[in-house]
Amino acid sequence: MSKFVMLGKLTAHPGQRDELARLMLESSESLEAMEGCLQYILSESADEPDVLWISEIWESAEAHAASLKDENVLAIISRCRPLIAAVTPVKLRALGGKGL
Amino acid sequence: MSKFVMLGKLTAHPGQRDELARLMLESSESLEAMEGCLQYILSESADEPDVLWISEIWESAEAHAASLKDENVLAIISRCRPLIAAVTPVKLRALGGKGL
Repeated sequence: MSKFVMLGKLTAHPGQRDELARLMLESSESLEAMEGCLQYILSESADEPDVLWISEIWESAEAHAASLKDENVLAIISRCRPLIAAVTPVKLRALGGKGL
Repeated sequence: MSKFVMLGKLTAHPGQRDELARLMLESSESLEAMEGCLQYILSESADEPDVLWISEIWESAEAHAASLKDENVLAIISRCRPLIAAVTPVKLRALGGKGL
């Protein structure tokens, strides 16, 4: 079964990107022990000042879905939500490559 | 210096996604030894039938730029180009997270 890749474009409210990034990096610590989470990388756009991107790799879509029921994750999402103007999720199936 | 993350949305001409994926996976083998290339993952969209996504992590933007002068890479790009209808690059600076 192919791994589940989740990309997400997060547009922060103007001036809120750094605070949103701080909160999300803090949340990535709780994912260290999260079963099925192989990678969770937060990046900032080089071209758009309010935009962050999340790139995640999970063992399966099911493992990712289960994480969204985790109390820690839910708490972090609710803290981040006021800072977020828009979210664009990109759901993918990994085909292969280097470092998968 | 933060790592360079490059995402790319590739829209294939109708019916050409599988062939494009085959060529690009073949090309990922030449990146195994490519200096500064930490990750190069090809994924297919779960929602858009003609779309592939590339998610790359490089030691630096310079390492990525240098790869675009590599003969192998240039040869693969020219073989893939006829199959591609559109490319949307997303240039990012990694901030942190799990598995970086």
